[in-house]
Amino acid sequence: MDFLEELKKISGNNVFTSKEDMIPYLNDASYFEGVLPLAVVVPVDTQEVSRIMKLCYDNNMPVTVRGGGSSLTGSSILSEKGIVLSLAGFDRIEEISTGDNLAVVQPGVRLDALNQALARSGYFYPPDPASSMAATVGGSISTNAGGLRASLYGTTKNWILGLDVVLADGNIVKFGGRTLKRSSGYDLTALMVGSEGTLGVITRAYLKIWPLPEEKGRVSAYFSEIEKVGQSISEIKKIGIMPMIAEFLDRITMDSLESTTSLKFPKDAKYLLIMDVTSTAQSIDIMLESVYRKISELNPISISKTRDPKVMDEMYAARKGAYSSLLKQRETSTQKVVIGDVVVPASKLPEALKSIEKKGYDHGLKVALFGHIGDGNIHCNIYADVAKQEIMKEVDAFQMEIGEIAVNLGGSVSAEHGIGIEKKELLSREFRMRNSEYTIEMMKQIKKIIDPKGILNRGKILE
Amino acid sequence: MDFLEELKKISGNNVFTSKEDMIPYLNDASYFEGVLPLAVVVPVDTQEVSRIMKLCYDNNMPVTVRGGGSSLTGSSILSEKGIVLSLAGFDRIEEISTGDNLAVVQPGVRLDALNQALARSGYFYPPDPASSMAATVGGSISTNAGGLRASLYGTTKNWILGLDVVLADGNIVKFGGRTLKRSSGYDLTALMVGSEGTLGVITRAYLKIWPLPEEKGRVSAYFSEIEKVGQSISEIKKIGIMPMIAEFLDRITMDSLESTTSLKFPKDAKYLLIMDVTSTAQSIDIMLESVYRKISELNPISISKTRDPKVMDEMYAARKGAYSSLLKQRETSTQKVVIGDVVVPASKLPEALKSIEKKGYDHGLKVALFGHIGDGNIHCNIYADVAKQEIMKEVDAFQMEIGEIAVNLGGSVSAEHGIGIEKKELLSREFRMRNSEYTIEMMKQIKKIIDPKGILNRGKILE
Repeated sequence: MDFLEELKKISGNNVFTSKEDMIPYLNDASYFEGVLPLAVVVPVDTQEVSRIMKLCYDNNMPVTVRGGGSSLTGSSILSEKGIVLSLAGFDRIEEISTGDNLAVVQPGVRLDALNQALARSGYFYPPDPASSMAATVGGSISTNAGGLRASLYGTTKNWILGLDVVLADGNIVKFGGRTLKRSSGYDLTALMVGSEGTLGVITRAYLKIWPLPEEKGRVSAYFSEIEKVGQSISEIKKIGIMPMIAEFLDRITMDSLESTTSLKFPKDAKYLLIMDVTSTAQSIDIMLESVYRKISELNPISISKTRDPKVMDEMYAARKGAYSSLLKQRETSTQKVVIGDVVVPASKLPEALKSIEKKGYDHGLKVALFGHIGDGNIHCNIYADVAKQEIMKEVDAFQMEIGEIAVNLGGSVSAEHGIGIEKKELLSREFRMRNSEYTIEMMKQIKKIIDPKGILNRGKILE
Repeated sequence: MDFLEELKKISGNNVFTSKEDMIPYLNDASYFEGVLPLAVVVPVDTQEVSRIMKLCYDNNMPVTVRGGGSSLTGSSILSEKGIVLSLAGFDRIEEISTGDNLAVVQPGVRLDALNQALARSGYFYPPDPASSMAATVGGSISTNAGGLRASLYGTTKNWILGLDVVLADGNIVKFGGRTLKRSSGYDLTALMVGSEGTLGVITRAYLKIWPLPEEKGRVSAYFSEIEKVGQSISEIKKIGIMPMIAEFLDRITMDSLESTTSLKFPKDAKYLLIMDVTSTAQSIDIMLESVYRKISELNPISISKTRDPKVMDEMYAARKGAYSSLLKQRETSTQKVVIGDVVVPASKLPEALKSIEKKGYDHGLKVALFGHIGDGNIHCNIYADVAKQEIMKEVDAFQMEIGEIAVNLGGSVSAEHGIGIEKKELLSREFRMRNSEYTIEMMKQIKKIIDPKGILNRGKILE
């Protein structure tokens, strides 16, 4: 029997092979285009995933797992012919237990849907990438997603207690579990986080959840110098305040938001800094005042504070939509927005921001800068006409250089978007620059023993 | 040239081979006795560690890394002839940067020394195992130490940003680094955390640090039923309060503390619950009152609250000294205190505590119970005469049964002490019970590729 017949024996009507059905899987949120899959299969339980994987393993069939398809580095598209294993059918929140700080969920659950459910109990799941409406639990685990609130709460890795996983050969394994701590052998849960679907198929996740903060407040400040935006974070941290979010936007981003939302920004402002703090009802105003005063010392063009949830939510939503908003400003059909994603220690932000901005000018590129600077994360959104080779050469050079800037300042070439197809060379360069190339070799060896035939998300991260 | 001569060529006077010098390394804080080392070497820099490891690798020489020697599962003693690589010379705090939430430290730094240094800037490193006076950064990373404050702050794994590591063959590698986030390939930093010295020698750690809480307050309550102690945690979490510490002690532990400290406990109290909360100056009393009221609903024998730092510190120190205090109550020279360390989801604590207490009676053992129940962690301190085979049989059976109780309730056989020599069979049983034996097989394969000759901490965790 041929492979597709065998696959249909397992998954019946949940196997899709017509071109029309498969076209959506040619792309993810990155600017890459993948290979058309041989088939898309949408299993509904772990046993079925196991049988599919065994079949693929026996047939050396490449498998790319699909969550929300919101990868920005090409993680969820196909590098070569193979099947897409979509986890769209794994969309149940199985259990919420606030008394245990625990949610047990299937990987296809969307982050916003999870947080809507948790909010009813006064709890939340902190990781909040800008794509949270589309991004799934499984996908966000696979890239160790950060997002806006990681400044205070850390990235996804801090919130994963355990995983049920189907390995390349169909073996079903459990890592970690329902408890808040354990010290029982190597932390294979952590190894899965950020592995971009190259080590196994997550079929269940045990998430740590946390009480919603009691009150929130925001300081917004406009600056004309990018270094001062960068300075703000370490100054605030030095006085012992950990903002829940600390975001910045440059003028290009503000302009694009003005054209896609009802927000208005002062004409003379070049950079906007937003800092949210959380506290109790009794303390929020005092804390907000401390932040206001500290940021005022940096001489912003203007500064304001608010606790109005409507005002805060509107800007939060706009910030989450900044990338989409930039996409709408493209001038030609072949123009894309390539998104760089680097991270540095907070104290190096002034230098990093200034150097990166300058590099953009040097390469003659239109680059919109924003980022989760609370944890040192800078996003560089590069308008790039993929049809023009000479422009793409500049884009590639710029990406390489900002990666080097980050590494030279003690940072990394990828903060939260992963490596995917896009950053394989950058990843090598990072460890070469750090004189630790063997780190990559170790990753390769681990990949080899866990997925010996290399069928899982072929062509990503390491190869 | 023979091995010892070569070793002396590398480390000169820092190689110790006399029996008197090596006797301290026969034991750690567990009840196990190890093999006398061939030599103890105390290198002072990473290059020296690399040369030592290369020599050992070439000679198939087992190496056990030594930190503070406070392991409770035999992790730091020798299962067979080999050398001890002591990191006592790696005792420098290299850098503290509050603006970056970062401390860069050598692995031999004691946790208390680190926190004394950080306190001067209003910051701290949250992991706080009871042995923090002796325990080192390296050792606590190696067991993914939890401790008293893990209830709020999570275990060590949440606080490690990066590691410099010397591998078995002498290769020097870097994992992670100075930034708060990254998504750059497999998380080898996380793989090292909890690996008990079996995968590499940590020579530098990049730690995340955090502002000290503004104010603290404590509710103490005495109970006559152990289930109610267990109930307290999930009840408090359900109302959205995350205590910084939540500890309990049973009567045996209270009695032992009465004889070793100036503390006095009510005569009729069987169990003591201590819950510390943190907040701002404006909110601490309100939060403390919420905890007080919620715990009062469980009808304790008596309940009190305090914000007096002296009173709080005295009890905190006593709790940290509870194990030592129990050790002083031993009746014969061959009697030891074997310490069980299991974890369950908070909502299962009532059932777990009751079952475990009953098992102790059933086996005719004197068992003192205490634990970090804020994160579901129960410690069972078993008075065990290692010279009496029939008693040790009961101890082993008890340990196995409490492990099974924990796993059946969704927990684990080891919360924070690791596996070491003691829990290898329990670790297997956990994954057998969970129908995931292949998880252990994966750990073995990872060990094999990273330390192919198996020279690092031989006989621990998996073999």
